[in-house]
Amino acid sequence: MSEQLSPIPVVHTIDAIRELVQEWKRQGLSVGLVPTMGYLHEGHQSLIERAAQDNDRVVVSDFVNPIQFGPSEDLESYPRDLQRDTALVERAGGSVLFNPTPAEMYFPNRTTAITMSTITEELCGKTRPVHFGGVCTVVAKLFNIVTPDRAYFGKKDAQQLLVIRRMVRDLNFNIEIIGCPIIREADGLAKSSRNTYLTEAERAAAPVLHRALERGRMLAESGERSSEVIIAAIREVLDSEPLTDTEYVEIVDLETVHPVPTLDQPVLVALAVRLGTTRLIDNFFFPDEL
Amino acid sequence: MSEQLSPIPVVHTIDAIRELVQEWKRQGLSVGLVPTMGYLHEGHQSLIERAAQDNDRVVVSDFVNPIQFGPSEDLESYPRDLQRDTALVERAGGSVLFNPTPAEMYFPNRTTAITMSTITEELCGKTRPVHFGGVCTVVAKLFNIVTPDRAYFGKKDAQQLLVIRRMVRDLNFNIEIIGCPIIREADGLAKSSRNTYLTEAERAAAPVLHRALERGRMLAESGERSSEVIIAAIREVLDSEPLTDTEYVEIVDLETVHPVPTLDQPVLVALAVRLGTTRLIDNFFFPDEL
Repeated sequence: MSEQLSPIPVVHTIDAIRELVQEWKRQGLSVGLVPTMGYLHEGHQSLIERAAQDNDRVVVSDFVNPIQFGPSEDLESYPRDLQRDTALVERAGGSVLFNPTPAEMYFPNRTTAITMSTITEELCGKTRPVHFGGVCTVVAKLFNIVTPDRAYFGKKDAQQLLVIRRMVRDLNFNIEIIGCPIIREADGLAKSSRNTYLTEAERAAAPVLHRALERGRMLAESGERSSEVIIAAIREVLDSEPLTDTEYVEIVDLETVHPVPTLDQPVLVALAVRLGTTRLIDNFFFPDEL
Repeated sequence: MSEQLSPIPVVHTIDAIRELVQEWKRQGLSVGLVPTMGYLHEGHQSLIERAAQDNDRVVVSDFVNPIQFGPSEDLESYPRDLQRDTALVERAGGSVLFNPTPAEMYFPNRTTAITMSTITEELCGKTRPVHFGGVCTVVAKLFNIVTPDRAYFGKKDAQQLLVIRRMVRDLNFNIEIIGCPIIREADGLAKSSRNTYLTEAERAAAPVLHRALERGRMLAESGERSSEVIIAAIREVLDSEPLTDTEYVEIVDLETVHPVPTLDQPVLVALAVRLGTTRLIDNFFFPDEL
């Protein structure tokens, strides 16, 4: 594209982003928020583009949130590239990049947390016990800082989407939560900032996640209603790839996120797989909705 | 007063109060919130009057919040009188009374909570372990529903005021929290909806809380800096009244709410006393501020 883009502001303080948003609101403009941890890819880009369609202004937050990482997780190594992120946000139609420091976001003696029970203990919550509490807390903070009309989350983090929707309902945030489709590489691998961790051999193996889910989806679409049968078929495809170490394959209810024996209600079919030291997730909703 | 007052609306749903506030905001009006559990007295009245001075419109919420009561506490017997409350809100300059049902405020399968550590475990938190989490959760919900510019809390519930200020800071609510002075009966007893539980003999004994605190305040004002000495003097006055059963007398730091040995920093001097089955609290800040 040869189109000239005006540089967007990158703001680092809560006061600065508040001031900007309040000025927009005084002008009667609507505001969308796309919360990210940076290292943006086409998945984030699609969220920003959707937000730019729906809203007069779009805030993209770029913050690697320390409190959603467990002690043995990849906080330190999580990839960062603010300059590239800024260019992508500009290109996608974002209005501003909000990039606070951890010290700007968290007081040293903070004592408040948002916690969620039951639905955060399923799926990824089993191996990531602090994760969703950290997500809820930072998203609530971003909601209070930016006060958007709408906020955009990718369906790739499907449990996160369900958790955020629940938090919004339970705490009465007046914000519309919009889930956006998974964006994939040409070979089917779901876009993820963590794909950068994969070795060449792991990267070559990684599309098996999508192939396995497609096998499950075909079964469901052809009328199969047994979770056990569908899960077994998905696992069979995953197991055909020797580099994969499957953490879970589950079919869960959208409200409770608890496993269900049959597909007689809307469900989420989700899996988590390790490829070497990298943990990848993928999923589909059936029927496709949300 | 013979002045004619126009009746204020009493709204019972979240949608209705939101619509009202959003219309005010479209008109550029400022909004104050006075969260209460109803059975309003002159203490609440002073909060509403202050809010009416500071803001164009004042929402008074009137909701006995079930999740801030422990299992053995007085949720069922907590006094209620919506008609009297409405008249008081009108008289004090409130714009609307928001009186939701518990079912309107809480989904049956809610899973989200706001929790606070350390400062909620001191003072009243020792005997009321679920209390402040329940307060934080309902206040956060009210903040999200009403989106006020300012919210008003009485200093009588001093620990609550410190907890709410902390929650606002930690979660970045863009709301100014205003603490208002304790309002007392002629004999010094702090106004409280729970005073209605007192028998005649207990009511006659109850001003001892204030007398005891005044003894402590005089010592502090005359230069005494030992918490131990001041607490002993307060306890001596309390113990002079045979009906009292002292739960705690403590002098704590305003940030940590943890006991401090000396008054070399701003402190809260707080006590909780049982009179029969009724639990009363009272306090003063030294120096008087906040």
